Amino acid sequence: MFKLEVLVTLKKDVLDPQGKAIEIAAKNINLRNIYSVKQNKYFEVFVDKVPTQNKAKEIASKLSKSLLANEVIEDFKIIKCRKV
Amino acid sequence: MFKLEVLVTLKKDVLDPQGKAIEIAAKNINLRNIYSVKQNKYFEVFVDKVPTQNKAKEIASKLSKSLLANEVIEDFKIIKCRKV
Repeated sequence: MFKLEVLVTLKKDVLDPQGKAIEIAAKNINLRNIYSVKQNKYFEVFVDKVPTQNKAKEIASKLSKSLLANEVIEDFKIIKCRKV
Repeated sequence: MFKLEVLVTLKKDVLDPQGKAIEIAAKNINLRNIYSVKQNKYFEVFVDKVPTQNKAKEIASKLSKSLLANEVIEDFKIIKCRKV
């Protein structure tokens, strides 16, 4: 089995309302040094019954394209892949 | 200014309904090698007007405890801190 880590981030210039809400909340609780916050998604994907790392990456890439990321507004990146 | 990366993950044994939904959806679109998926949050936090990395980490840690993570069901970890 392979464990892959997939990072899904908003594309540049796409509004991040959750990040904005955290920035405002930080000011409200007197954390005034917080300049900005961006919230992203981070997935741990376990791929089973594949022979090679490359095949696992290919499957995780398909999964990301179809389910994890909305490629209109988000980018995804497979940041790690290791055998477990 | 310092850029910190904070990873917020569900504690072990806490149900992850979003991950589960992705697993089921993956089966429905015939990605049968997906064994399991876990969805986590990943924040990019910019901390301004602090003298040292340690101070920046301290502030990001306060932010995580009060706003980014619900420590009853989630863990957080500052995985990177660098000057930008």
